Amino acid sequence: MKKPYQLSATEAAKKIQANQLSSEELLRSCIERIEEKESSTQAWVETNFKAAIDRARYLDRSANQGLLHGLPFGVKDLFDTHDFPTRYGSPIYENNRPNSDAVHVSLMRQAGGILLGKTVTTEFATFKGGKTRNPRNPEYTPGGSSSGSAAAVADEMIPLATGSQTAASVIRPAAFCGVVGYKPTYGKISLGGAKSLSPSLDTLGSFSRTVEDAALCVAVMSGDTALAKIDKLNKKLRIGTCLTYDGHLASADTVAAIAHAALLAEDLFKVSVLEIKLPAIFKKMSELQGRIMWSESARSFSFEQTNHAEELSQQLRGLIKQGAAISYEQYNADLIVAEQARMSIDQLLSNEIDVIIAPSAIGEAPHGHTSTGDPIFCRVWTLMGLPCITLPLFKGPNGMPVGVQLVARRGRDRLLLSVADALLKAQM
Amino acid sequence: MKKPYQLSATEAAKKIQANQLSSEELLRSCIERIEEKESSTQAWVETNFKAAIDRARYLDRSANQGLLHGLPFGVKDLFDTHDFPTRYGSPIYENNRPNSDAVHVSLMRQAGGILLGKTVTTEFATFKGGKTRNPRNPEYTPGGSSSGSAAAVADEMIPLATGSQTAASVIRPAAFCGVVGYKPTYGKISLGGAKSLSPSLDTLGSFSRTVEDAALCVAVMSGDTALAKIDKLNKKLRIGTCLTYDGHLASADTVAAIAHAALLAEDLFKVSVLEIKLPAIFKKMSELQGRIMWSESARSFSFEQTNHAEELSQQLRGLIKQGAAISYEQYNADLIVAEQARMSIDQLLSNEIDVIIAPSAIGEAPHGHTSTGDPIFCRVWTLMGLPCITLPLFKGPNGMPVGVQLVARRGRDRLLLSVADALLKAQM
Repeated sequence: MKKPYQLSATEAAKKIQANQLSSEELLRSCIERIEEKESSTQAWVETNFKAAIDRARYLDRSANQGLLHGLPFGVKDLFDTHDFPTRYGSPIYENNRPNSDAVHVSLMRQAGGILLGKTVTTEFATFKGGKTRNPRNPEYTPGGSSSGSAAAVADEMIPLATGSQTAASVIRPAAFCGVVGYKPTYGKISLGGAKSLSPSLDTLGSFSRTVEDAALCVAVMSGDTALAKIDKLNKKLRIGTCLTYDGHLASADTVAAIAHAALLAEDLFKVSVLEIKLPAIFKKMSELQGRIMWSESARSFSFEQTNHAEELSQQLRGLIKQGAAISYEQYNADLIVAEQARMSIDQLLSNEIDVIIAPSAIGEAPHGHTSTGDPIFCRVWTLMGLPCITLPLFKGPNGMPVGVQLVARRGRDRLLLSVADALLKAQM
Repeated sequence: MKKPYQLSATEAAKKIQANQLSSEELLRSCIERIEEKESSTQAWVETNFKAAIDRARYLDRSANQGLLHGLPFGVKDLFDTHDFPTRYGSPIYENNRPNSDAVHVSLMRQAGGILLGKTVTTEFATFKGGKTRNPRNPEYTPGGSSSGSAAAVADEMIPLATGSQTAASVIRPAAFCGVVGYKPTYGKISLGGAKSLSPSLDTLGSFSRTVEDAALCVAVMSGDTALAKIDKLNKKLRIGTCLTYDGHLASADTVAAIAHAALLAEDLFKVSVLEIKLPAIFKKMSELQGRIMWSESARSFSFEQTNHAEELSQQLRGLIKQGAAISYEQYNADLIVAEQARMSIDQLLSNEIDVIIAPSAIGEAPHGHTSTGDPIFCRVWTLMGLPCITLPLFKGPNGMPVGVQLVARRGRDRLLLSVADALLKAQM
């Protein structure tokens, strides 16, 4: 029988509701797991076991408060919390203690969730990695920027954690750590109380070990509670693979993973999976994503750049400088082209394809800790605002996870989750 | 000769650059004005004259730092500032001292601006008014939610102030106080460091006494520095009036103001101004705006509702409850219809009309201080994300200002400012 910490959020919630498990038992099991693994994985900036146990006891005595009743979760340290420091992965905010919770944190608590602590983010969700190690093998990067959330969930310390993506910060660490990472449609979850990086791109998302749990978490964070129940698939699906115009950068194991996932989908859904060629406008979309991100980020970091430049990493200072050098005319032209591409992909996804199977990353997590990996295979989808989910379907030559990304039309999160859930279950 | 506090930001900036005025002289003149008028107008939550004078002296010794070099400004107390309390108009945040500046505040400082203090906002930018009085006549409301910013600029305490609009919170107080209020295209200015209300609608804007100053302020806040220079109009304009489907609510003086503004435009631009009828989809757009705003707000105030309900006004508690009662399905359906309307108005504004002349509010500012006025004539344009500017062109039967609102296509901020500048100058 599974130990409580091994349960998915959905399984644990069912047991708690059936009085087969108390919230306190679940939490103590997770805490034991953290105490066992944290010294090597280092997923956490700060935890508060005592406060969490108090809350678990309170919830055990209370009527059901919502979809997350009694479930512990972690929050990326890019989001405000009133009872934990909020450092954004930067020494500038060493002593920052906000007076409120980010909107999604409050919604998760309101639904009965127990905030166990803050998870490691790279510096302001950009490139400079934190202390976290990949729980599958500590010699490899966990990916970033939501490194701690991905690692804590992969290491079975908690069933759910939150993160955010501006380029690849949910999908990439989830793929590298071998968990489910879900970035819903742009705008679906409020960013209130988040440190803003690039407002045109920033999107909140979830980490979990099952697709059902991803649906549960985003249902609560967005208010779209119906999302928690995965729909049965009862239509003929149109599925295609797409390596994008950056496909030549994919490793052999990633190309093989996409082909395997396509076969799996063909078998499971009784369809022919086609190869999709994106319209020519998509050739420059990765480049545009980078320019838009750094142009906006240069403005977003104005306060830190002006008042605390010496406490920013050299790499980030360089990127802010690069971003500030992009003319507003260029930035604005990029936004207009991106909007044209958005209309073009909406049309493609409306007329021809329900779900795209695409790489989550170049390949397995890179060895070492100098880089959190290349965001290239997430840039386009993030810029388009499409809902994306990565599934831990395969392993690469180093024995590290290789994720497969599914992408759907804006607003088609329910369909995406249904397909993802079926695929992940078929592979297990 | 004008006293320094009477100068527009653009005039003051020119004099400072020409060494005809020091930043310290300008600031001391503004401070004298505040000391004279604040006891009746009550525009400010908190000021720091000493820090401002120190900064003015520093700027007087420094090379030009940017477009706002040496100019004092005020910031709505809905935005984070690292050196002032940030209370969001609520006792819940009495002791809130953020560790950074909101993005737009930092950009204004980086451009040489001097933050003189925080201006009064209604409770979380919603309905419950603050202490501010209308400087044209203290018996009337200044409008909300950016009450203090509108009043401080109208009372010539400062040339520039910032605000935000989710329904009517820039246009309405500007119209009631008789100043220029400019809400640029949705998304043009980062909301980083703002208390979030309704992410689909929240938009930052400016208060000033001239259109040139509005352009200057938004140029700095957005990074679109070219906006600071008003373009010459060299094309044949297509201008129309539009009372929207809520036109029957407009007072006689507002209807007359629109007709007068149309005549003014006909004379000035040598065009025929037509009456525009909005497509039928716009009939319900005001209602949709309200539902989307309160559905999102109910989530945005989750933390306050859960932890500080007794410190929320009864009115706000009621509205949060109403918002929480809106189903996600309804909310999502509303978003889809709003997006259809957005495409329809984009087409209309692309094919037929450059600038719409519309009411800024029902009429003059209401008497008394129980209400900050009806937002009805801003709801549609805010929901559409269109750039809007109100001009203090007329007076009503009580001798209070009656504004006229100009509206353009998304992204056509430059054209809007050119037309507005010409119209306001023609009337002066």
